[in-house]
Amino acid sequence: MARIADIEAALSASDGNRPEGERGRGRRGRGSGGAEARRALRSGQAAPKNRFIQRQIPPYEILSEEGLALIEQNAETVLEEIGIEFREDAEALALWKDAGAEVDGERVRFPRGLCRKLCETIPASFTQHARNPERSVEIGGNNTVFAPVYGPPFVRDLEGGRRYATIEDFRNFVKLAYMAPAMHHSGGTVCEPVDVPVNKRHFDMVYAHLRYSDLPFMGSVTAPERAADSVAMAKLVFGDDFVETNTVMINLINANSPMTFDATMLGALKVYARHNQACIVTPFILSGAMAPVTPVGVMTQTLAEALAGLAFTQLVRPGAPAVLGSFASSMSMQSGAPTFGTPEPALVLYGMAALARRLGVPFRSGGSLCGSKLPDAQAAHESSQTLLPTVFGGVNYVLHAAGWLEGGLVSSYAKVVIDADQLGMMQTFAGGYDLSENGQAMDALREVGPGSHFLGCDHTRANFETAFYRSTIADNNSFEQWEAEGAQDAYRRANTLYKKMLADYQVPALDPAIDEALTAFIAERQDSMPDAFS
Amino acid sequence: MARIADIEAALSASDGNRPEGERGRGRRGRGSGGAEARRALRSGQAAPKNRFIQRQIPPYEILSEEGLALIEQNAETVLEEIGIEFREDAEALALWKDAGAEVDGERVRFPRGLCRKLCETIPASFTQHARNPERSVEIGGNNTVFAPVYGPPFVRDLEGGRRYATIEDFRNFVKLAYMAPAMHHSGGTVCEPVDVPVNKRHFDMVYAHLRYSDLPFMGSVTAPERAADSVAMAKLVFGDDFVETNTVMINLINANSPMTFDATMLGALKVYARHNQACIVTPFILSGAMAPVTPVGVMTQTLAEALAGLAFTQLVRPGAPAVLGSFASSMSMQSGAPTFGTPEPALVLYGMAALARRLGVPFRSGGSLCGSKLPDAQAAHESSQTLLPTVFGGVNYVLHAAGWLEGGLVSSYAKVVIDADQLGMMQTFAGGYDLSENGQAMDALREVGPGSHFLGCDHTRANFETAFYRSTIADNNSFEQWEAEGAQDAYRRANTLYKKMLADYQVPALDPAIDEALTAFIAERQDSMPDAFS
Repeated sequence: MARIADIEAALSASDGNRPEGERGRGRRGRGSGGAEARRALRSGQAAPKNRFIQRQIPPYEILSEEGLALIEQNAETVLEEIGIEFREDAEALALWKDAGAEVDGERVRFPRGLCRKLCETIPASFTQHARNPERSVEIGGNNTVFAPVYGPPFVRDLEGGRRYATIEDFRNFVKLAYMAPAMHHSGGTVCEPVDVPVNKRHFDMVYAHLRYSDLPFMGSVTAPERAADSVAMAKLVFGDDFVETNTVMINLINANSPMTFDATMLGALKVYARHNQACIVTPFILSGAMAPVTPVGVMTQTLAEALAGLAFTQLVRPGAPAVLGSFASSMSMQSGAPTFGTPEPALVLYGMAALARRLGVPFRSGGSLCGSKLPDAQAAHESSQTLLPTVFGGVNYVLHAAGWLEGGLVSSYAKVVIDADQLGMMQTFAGGYDLSENGQAMDALREVGPGSHFLGCDHTRANFETAFYRSTIADNNSFEQWEAEGAQDAYRRANTLYKKMLADYQVPALDPAIDEALTAFIAERQDSMPDAFS
Repeated sequence: MARIADIEAALSASDGNRPEGERGRGRRGRGSGGAEARRALRSGQAAPKNRFIQRQIPPYEILSEEGLALIEQNAETVLEEIGIEFREDAEALALWKDAGAEVDGERVRFPRGLCRKLCETIPASFTQHARNPERSVEIGGNNTVFAPVYGPPFVRDLEGGRRYATIEDFRNFVKLAYMAPAMHHSGGTVCEPVDVPVNKRHFDMVYAHLRYSDLPFMGSVTAPERAADSVAMAKLVFGDDFVETNTVMINLINANSPMTFDATMLGALKVYARHNQACIVTPFILSGAMAPVTPVGVMTQTLAEALAGLAFTQLVRPGAPAVLGSFASSMSMQSGAPTFGTPEPALVLYGMAALARRLGVPFRSGGSLCGSKLPDAQAAHESSQTLLPTVFGGVNYVLHAAGWLEGGLVSSYAKVVIDADQLGMMQTFAGGYDLSENGQAMDALREVGPGSHFLGCDHTRANFETAFYRSTIADNNSFEQWEAEGAQDAYRRANTLYKKMLADYQVPALDPAIDEALTAFIAERQDSMPDAFS
């Protein structure tokens, strides 16, 4: 321990010697989570926002070429022999018939290669425009975009415990994503505002994304007319023509696995695809229930369902942006509940990422998933066991990247900030290696030599401020100081941090004319129908 | 939620229908953490022990060929221009002079390629024999071996908090590693038994590994004569000739970075290498203090130091087993403390793993490292952020795989079992994809078809028991049940589990004649010197 004490002394000395003007100047342009961001958070200024990640590292390819080809072949067999049901949608069945598929009732069977051929018009990468052009993201290729959790009916914080979510919670989660430096996207249903009638919520949700954030966002998919409302609201912000020829919303279209698409999802898909808005076609799979129990079986079914859904977007509008989605969990043998952070979903993720690359379409999967009831060690392990495969596997669009708790039943305030810290680390990691002369540090090695230390050398002084990712959550103080500060665990520290962020939040500017148009539209539409709560 | 309820019902039904004789029979031979292990833990039987991991997945290669070659070239420049100091060891300097190095005082400079050439006699892989032959491990190639934390002076559990470690704690950690299915190795200084005189503790530590476990273990390195004592004790167990021609101990030889080896470490290295025991030559680096702040700089220095140390083992005894070690942490700018689970050490780990593969020698790095004071979300994230790179990068020998807390100052009882659960997941993951007909599950897809579910189908019934890794720590029960059971976090559950394991522990058999010889040897040696406490 004597040695660490020496280091601390030398460290303070070297910090004290540095000219004030040099502090906080990033030298490597890596963006993320550094001293500047922390200072900004503390001072209440808006933190510098990371752009989406442009990965400088290759994807981790685990499944062999032979394995990938086998799964593609099996998926074609599923499409050809078993087929996919398109339910209660005569238009969809007609489109498939015209395209050369065999339609038998609601069951559609596809000649081998048909879906794959149709997918050729899907853009390999596309821009999702934000109302603030600096926040627009690129979805596809080497890019990775982080969005918050989607769908929980409950929220949790340390004091209030677990309770039903409200529109106030919804706005808070939008604000936290807006503020966290490593989050690139505002997401969609960051929680279900159950205090607002179910047939009117989508207005308040889309408005919250547009008003309290300037990040790109997701539209409503719970009914075709709600998708249409989302498009109408986007047009008030971006303009009619812009929306029709660009992409300003990305939308979650889940398959009703196994091998079925229902009318609600097909209806929303058609609205968005027709208006050139992006659809994420996602088989949502609890292995052993909605698909076979084996990873290769899950991948085969996922690929078959996704191929059919993606191809369908191109029947609606060739060239419409679409994303191959995969959501797969394992199952608890005790409770039948979905489980996360286990090896099997990670194997599925890596394999599906490779299959999407072979298909040449953007890929959505992963996030910071967990089954834990609290942001504890279980939550963290399960989240990391999902997030690292997400980034190493090369996922393009990452829903549930922050805030997901208890199998997606709960949006956790503390976990948003814990997860966002991990996202910052991933952003730095994805920057890869600095092989420049400065990165090689040969001058430092020559200057210091054997038996000395690097704390005071020129290279260390010049790079120290930006050399290491600085966590907003981790406590690396001495044991004594940590005890003196209340011996808090990460959950408690995060609970304090999210409140500070909300207290520091400043609403981004929005043209008052646009705001007025939005609120008028919402009022008119909401007044046009009675409240419904189911 | 209705859907999940259906699944639960169907699940219980399907479980109930299964013939009793079929339960618990592993079908895929993946080993780890499954139902059998859990039942064994509960029933107090010795759990089935996993063998070391034979990875069926490729390593994740992140650094380019160009980058790897550049670092190798720079490391040779360090060896040639700057050199390495071998302190207070005239024999070492003489060996280097004879080998063609330039010796200037204690500084040794190496013609380009000399160290690399000498390393050619290091075995690419070797067997470390355990006293129970079924527990012998293979170190190198595609294999990964997990060993516990090494070195902490403190221990922690939930009730006692943080306190100095004793020999009783030491024995407990040996017992836990012996019992945890996914731990393959007993390690070395699992904690520092500070209640035993410093000059006598190595006897009690080596004895504990030999008596309370039958896993392979590590010898003492704190003085050359203690290394000799370790070899003498190993000979009482394995026999003289066997030890001289096989490897039964692996030993941690740290460089005194930057670019220095001290007399203690060189002395221990020489003892072990002469007796054909394995040395892990590890530059121990806090970036910015013992090496430059940049990952590429850290790798350059690590490779140079390791090359010199590894080559030296071959001067002592050509063909002696040796392992390239890398331990690199980032640094807290607030406290100067080492930090873990950050992106920079992960980049170093992946790069060093690739450099070791190019050199053709086994590699040690990683583990479940963290800076947190508690087994909380910080500890878990940091541990996963180290462990996943460890496995994906292809580390062969993993020290600190379980129990490491607070920057290595603390051995944590609860964290041993939390980490061991993660190690089990890694073992399953490393098994890769099952591409067999059963893995492909085409029969299941054909049987079930669109809109139904897979719970009752033949394929699910036949595979369900072994399909998913079953965590010993995660709680996946309903929220209501979790609340009724005390709303415990993972730390609390783990604290209960480790006590149950210790209560269930059964000592492995040891030939009484050997035991007697060991205790007699220890008594004689311990009585031959006065106690020393520093």
